Amino acid sequence: MAKQSISGFPEWLPEGRTVEVFVQDTLRRVFELHGFSGIETRAVEPLSALESKGETSKQVYLLERLQSVREEATKGISVAEPTGRDLGLHFDLTVPLARYVLKNANELSFPLRRYQIQKVWRGERPQEGRFREFTQADIDIIGFDTLSFHHEVEAARVMLDALGQLGIPPVLMEVNNRRLLQGLVAAAGIEDFEGTLRGLDKLDKIGPDGVSEELRAGGLSEAQISQVIAIAQISTDSADELRIRVAELGLSNDLVHRGLNELCELLIGASNSAPGQVRASLRIARGLDYYTGSVYETVIPGYESLGSICSGGRYDTLVSEGRRTYPGVGLSIGVTRLVSLILSERLLVASRPSPSVVMVAVTSEDERAASDRVAAALRNRGVNCEVAPSAQKFGKQIRMAEKRGIPFVWFPGDNQESGQVKDIRSGDQIEADAMSWLPPKEDLLVRVTPPKA
Amino acid sequence: MAKQSISGFPEWLPEGRTVEVFVQDTLRRVFELHGFSGIETRAVEPLSALESKGETSKQVYLLERLQSVREEATKGISVAEPTGRDLGLHFDLTVPLARYVLKNANELSFPLRRYQIQKVWRGERPQEGRFREFTQADIDIIGFDTLSFHHEVEAARVMLDALGQLGIPPVLMEVNNRRLLQGLVAAAGIEDFEGTLRGLDKLDKIGPDGVSEELRAGGLSEAQISQVIAIAQISTDSADELRIRVAELGLSNDLVHRGLNELCELLIGASNSAPGQVRASLRIARGLDYYTGSVYETVIPGYESLGSICSGGRYDTLVSEGRRTYPGVGLSIGVTRLVSLILSERLLVASRPSPSVVMVAVTSEDERAASDRVAAALRNRGVNCEVAPSAQKFGKQIRMAEKRGIPFVWFPGDNQESGQVKDIRSGDQIEADAMSWLPPKEDLLVRVTPPKA
Repeated sequence: MAKQSISGFPEWLPEGRTVEVFVQDTLRRVFELHGFSGIETRAVEPLSALESKGETSKQVYLLERLQSVREEATKGISVAEPTGRDLGLHFDLTVPLARYVLKNANELSFPLRRYQIQKVWRGERPQEGRFREFTQADIDIIGFDTLSFHHEVEAARVMLDALGQLGIPPVLMEVNNRRLLQGLVAAAGIEDFEGTLRGLDKLDKIGPDGVSEELRAGGLSEAQISQVIAIAQISTDSADELRIRVAELGLSNDLVHRGLNELCELLIGASNSAPGQVRASLRIARGLDYYTGSVYETVIPGYESLGSICSGGRYDTLVSEGRRTYPGVGLSIGVTRLVSLILSERLLVASRPSPSVVMVAVTSEDERAASDRVAAALRNRGVNCEVAPSAQKFGKQIRMAEKRGIPFVWFPGDNQESGQVKDIRSGDQIEADAMSWLPPKEDLLVRVTPPKA
Repeated sequence: MAKQSISGFPEWLPEGRTVEVFVQDTLRRVFELHGFSGIETRAVEPLSALESKGETSKQVYLLERLQSVREEATKGISVAEPTGRDLGLHFDLTVPLARYVLKNANELSFPLRRYQIQKVWRGERPQEGRFREFTQADIDIIGFDTLSFHHEVEAARVMLDALGQLGIPPVLMEVNNRRLLQGLVAAAGIEDFEGTLRGLDKLDKIGPDGVSEELRAGGLSEAQISQVIAIAQISTDSADELRIRVAELGLSNDLVHRGLNELCELLIGASNSAPGQVRASLRIARGLDYYTGSVYETVIPGYESLGSICSGGRYDTLVSEGRRTYPGVGLSIGVTRLVSLILSERLLVASRPSPSVVMVAVTSEDERAASDRVAAALRNRGVNCEVAPSAQKFGKQIRMAEKRGIPFVWFPGDNQESGQVKDIRSGDQIEADAMSWLPPKEDLLVRVTPPKA
């Protein structure tokens, strides 16, 4: 059996998985603290739904039953159009959400507050650092025809709260407002809004000179190019400074006015719950998406090359049906990208590799039942444990516990649940009763924390 | 956008998902109590690995990048053999485990105790009650060259413990031993062991007469057929009775002796931790699988038509590499099948549809920040809550909480975190401080329990 990795499909050892589960559990707990309900959608969607999302659609993995392929092959059918292959794996959690909302609109209560932590797949060409299978953790607040602006502040706060609970270095969320950008670009007399956004999106990659060149090729005048670059360079954590810098651009209209007010409100509101972790940065465009208000990107300072670990924005139409629309705001954490960094940089580590805190030794195979009873008594009080797989000499059983990273070994006594328990780290060994003994609180469950300095 | 269901791809409303998460969390907690480590494997495996498992392989979903299909279509290429389509979705968690064990053998500690709760996909033709996407919860104990028999007892106990913690009616686990069956069939002078197992597997479906007919067609003598039927009808929860009934068959050899001893030990050992929930049933064959020792199936009495919700067995070679083999024992819970029953029969229900226990009312949009502060103070002490989406009249805000199933509404007071909190079920309203108030313990988190009588 081939045992190689497949490029783009990451997998962790049990210890890494423990860290990943901690991250997911923490996100889930914070999302629920904020009143978000969890859902899970099927992994597949009709190809027609997946194709509605432009560029990303190219990355769809189509599904096909092996048996059908074999039948086709036998009959020598030429596959002109992928009929029958009408299902693909979802490449994000937004397309499924849109469909789920339409399908269940009568059962759901709006504004819908939903979170979803699930795998997605993108059939990209293999590439360093690109995942083809990865887990996203999404929150969205979906309104029914309308959705108040304050939810755009709230969504940012929820994510800052969630990321703040992980124990990783404080993140930096950069925010912008598509309405503001649209107003500024229009006031500068630029007609190609999309092209300008694409330019902004590349600023970090190709620098101001590169962007200028692209805009020039797109037909912008030198004055317009200067204005776009000046817009892109505005980045501040102060709403007052933001107002001054935007005023200095000398570009003004109703959209600028409203967008700027919203951006200031977002900056102030989000900073309130995460001081020093939010900046308004006008180069954040998220140009390829369908956002209409606030947009968000999040980096971990010191690890900017990783890219954004939490992005999203406000959209006016997640989906519509007849005259009814479902506007929303959503952010998505790239869990796999984040966990991959946490593991490679050891930002968080598990306190031990095994869930067991105790290995119950076995005196002889005939007395295994006594060890089983001790284990059952410990488990009854929430102590994770396992019984030694074989009745080797105690020294060997201790070494096995050590190898598995289990801190305590229990030696059954002559009667019932009494015995001795040894902390194999310190060597301390004490008399104990399995009906009452507990490990120190910090050992009870595996903890995931930054490594000790 | 199409909003239809896709046959075989189940999805739950948020309330159903809450029940599913409870089931998964409970299983995970019990698996960890028994010292099992969680892993997650990628969703895809090379087709060659998936095809190694006979019958089930036909159900593989192949993956193909949409872009490649389009390119093929443009070029008019005839797809004679599915080259390029070399990845498929896993249809169980055993093929991935085998590969994971080989890949990481040097990093893992044996016997490996691993659990895995993950989706699998089977491209079956759509059929009532058949899932094409479903979640399994597997435990396996994998040895390095050898694995002691006692783990076959342990694996059954872990699953009985896990299923016993869910709050559903007590399950019934039926166990058998392939070695015993093999010995009995050989002692009866029957050469076609596989065919006989296939017959046994059908007993519940087609009855003794149907099985007899099949065995007759397979060339068995009338005496042999009677013996197979007599074997298949042995079912008891008593090891003593089991020994007597097997002795009465008058079929004996070394395999029968060893298999019977193992089956008695399993029956006694598993019954010890789940009295009345284990039977030895000699018709349990799991004929299509590669088991070599104990085999297990589990039904919920009263819901037998659902089929087995937890099955598995002992296998001597999960995978091998050179002269090294990895024997194991494993059981798998069909989580989706189980949750589907729990939801349709209301065996368990969530105490409320929303994670929020409090909705903080908003006096006016200008005072939203005050409500946000109350919510933050509550969350700091683990109280899930949300702030009302708009500053409607309080009556309307209360009705919104009611509609969302949120039991408490908080009315902010004039200063800081003080205010009044109303239990909208009873109408009781009291003065409260968000820095200290807690809901009744049973309301703090959503609970999943059998419905009240």
